[in-house]
Amino acid sequence: MENQIETNPSDFTGKPIHCKAAIGRNPGEALVIEEIEVAPPQAWEVRIKILCTSLCHSDITYWKMARPIGTFPTIFGHEAIGVVESVGEHVDEVEKGDIVVPVFLANCGDCRDCKSEKSNVCSKIPFGIDPGMPKDGSSRFRDSNGEVINHFLGVSSFSEYTVVDITHLAKVIHPIPVDKACLLSCGISTGLGAATKIAKVEKGSTVAIFGLGAVGLAVAVGARMNGASKIIGVDLNSEKAEIAKKFGITDFVNPKDCGAPIKEVIAKLTDGGADYCFECIGLAPVMQDAFASCREGWGKTVIIGVEMHGAPIRVDSFEILKGKSISGSLFGGIKAKSDIPRLAKMYLDKELELDEFITHEMSFKDINKAFDLLIQGKSLRSIMWMDK
Amino acid sequence: MENQIETNPSDFTGKPIHCKAAIGRNPGEALVIEEIEVAPPQAWEVRIKILCTSLCHSDITYWKMARPIGTFPTIFGHEAIGVVESVGEHVDEVEKGDIVVPVFLANCGDCRDCKSEKSNVCSKIPFGIDPGMPKDGSSRFRDSNGEVINHFLGVSSFSEYTVVDITHLAKVIHPIPVDKACLLSCGISTGLGAATKIAKVEKGSTVAIFGLGAVGLAVAVGARMNGASKIIGVDLNSEKAEIAKKFGITDFVNPKDCGAPIKEVIAKLTDGGADYCFECIGLAPVMQDAFASCREGWGKTVIIGVEMHGAPIRVDSFEILKGKSISGSLFGGIKAKSDIPRLAKMYLDKELELDEFITHEMSFKDINKAFDLLIQGKSLRSIMWMDK
Repeated sequence: MENQIETNPSDFTGKPIHCKAAIGRNPGEALVIEEIEVAPPQAWEVRIKILCTSLCHSDITYWKMARPIGTFPTIFGHEAIGVVESVGEHVDEVEKGDIVVPVFLANCGDCRDCKSEKSNVCSKIPFGIDPGMPKDGSSRFRDSNGEVINHFLGVSSFSEYTVVDITHLAKVIHPIPVDKACLLSCGISTGLGAATKIAKVEKGSTVAIFGLGAVGLAVAVGARMNGASKIIGVDLNSEKAEIAKKFGITDFVNPKDCGAPIKEVIAKLTDGGADYCFECIGLAPVMQDAFASCREGWGKTVIIGVEMHGAPIRVDSFEILKGKSISGSLFGGIKAKSDIPRLAKMYLDKELELDEFITHEMSFKDINKAFDLLIQGKSLRSIMWMDK
Repeated sequence: MENQIETNPSDFTGKPIHCKAAIGRNPGEALVIEEIEVAPPQAWEVRIKILCTSLCHSDITYWKMARPIGTFPTIFGHEAIGVVESVGEHVDEVEKGDIVVPVFLANCGDCRDCKSEKSNVCSKIPFGIDPGMPKDGSSRFRDSNGEVINHFLGVSSFSEYTVVDITHLAKVIHPIPVDKACLLSCGISTGLGAATKIAKVEKGSTVAIFGLGAVGLAVAVGARMNGASKIIGVDLNSEKAEIAKKFGITDFVNPKDCGAPIKEVIAKLTDGGADYCFECIGLAPVMQDAFASCREGWGKTVIIGVEMHGAPIRVDSFEILKGKSISGSLFGGIKAKSDIPRLAKMYLDKELELDEFITHEMSFKDINKAFDLLIQGKSLRSIMWMDK
């Protein structure tokens, strides 16, 4: 861990904390930094002093959504790292001073899913966008008027302090710089996991990635790590072409400029279709393009993007009969408690590159600038430091 | 091989053969037994004296189809066994007198797909319903008026003699009774392969099978072989319930009688959804029911049925994100030349049961009776003997 990190926060055990948070008051409107009260952690909960947080595209997706799906006011943010300030009853996995990465997907370790190698979707604490804490549904946040502020994805990291359920965090056991570990909290792990745990990309295989945000580029890093021979990046923003090379993209295609259906372009580049296609945007028509761009016989389409409009995917079952398949994952098949430490160690062992994902750093108070940069496609990850 | 089988047919090498065939003259109309002329095999082709043939549901599907998809007149039939009568130039894999199983899906052994463990869909001789021989598109059949009669799926086994491409057959190297080996030519292998090669059903897992024809029941046999703990059979025909037990079905559900959506019934029987669901009918809504009946986290839907109306499958991508997947296969992932001998050996070693699939035996001249029985859901497999 870097020396300058404060791992001994003031002790407010059992008492509320007053601190700053960026509150989403209305869909699509700039966040407002306000003073809030953060209640003490209840049983099986942990109160965390956030060290830094980053912005993931899912924050923007839900921030834009009108009620009731995105219930406001809300403290968004779900990619972060922090230090344990205090713990509730029954928590013995972490203690005050531990560095932890909060995560949006629970990992209880006890349910059939957590115990299985085949799933990372905890069935004891199901994934949801409920506005409260996972176990009792209530909130630990109030604003200065006493109004309840909602949680988001079990994390709510756009706050100097937050409370998360013990199933929603991973303890950082390796001396990785906190901003790099912060990246492992959601998007980058998702892409890496999708390539290595879900698709299990093999040496020499061909890969097409639809959407070159941080998640898509993390898929590229994972595919390169696994020895893919060709990694095609597909994006409507040609400015991505240059930076994409750093992450292992060997061929960039802008569907607007290529003069043929994307499936034909990819078929030509891969001698019949890619072995693996990844959808990292969240649009059913793009999922269908990805499926169409896969090779017959064994082409696998991996869905990572959350469909923005709830539209179904429509596929020709005969293509399935000819050997194509569709799978997908939340969080790239990552189980927080075991996989995040593993990825952190890979970074320290120089087996995994993360640095290039951090394109911007800023103070937490400039959070709306981070939103602008990501919306405009100018950033991959902005690290927002709470104490700077 | 049974002793009574004639493995030394008269030698017509290089000459046409005049014999009987059941010709489909018009969609959905009874087949007509007529005398036809079967030309000698050309290069890479084999002329086979059919010993027995059975009726698969795909024959009925295509027989019902109006032009141009089902082009008439046609000699249907693609599940059979026979003895090599003569071979064309360049054929050295089999010789006169060899017992062979013709198959609808080519297995050239040379292309990237045939060489890969991941595919069984030969890319050198693609699957198709073309009316001629795979390599030159022409027919080897003429009727007594000299009119060309079309081939079907590269096999056309409803004839005393047929000509198939060398990639469309497997040599039978074990002394398995011919009627049992005949079953391995299509449907039974498809179901067995779907369970063991595509889904790779594991010990203790739960399975739901939609459609209890011979293919669906072969899935059950494969799932039982692999140690599935519960094998649910779903069929609109409750008369299937009894016979299904013989094949390993542990729970029978008729969606018309169960008083709740099928996915709920299966969720209840499996504590949340089946690990594996198989669609063995060929209807998109049933494929969607199968997908809905799979467990979140890792539930796999395997498509085996050919969609009868060309309708797409529509699935919620969020279900995919939560770990469900869809895959499928033609011919259950079976590679004829290696897998059919392997399955034949398993039968002889008493590791695989086949006998119960044969519900009827008859003379080839009664072929329309076999159609009636299958259409009425009264038979699984009718073996039609050419010489009886």
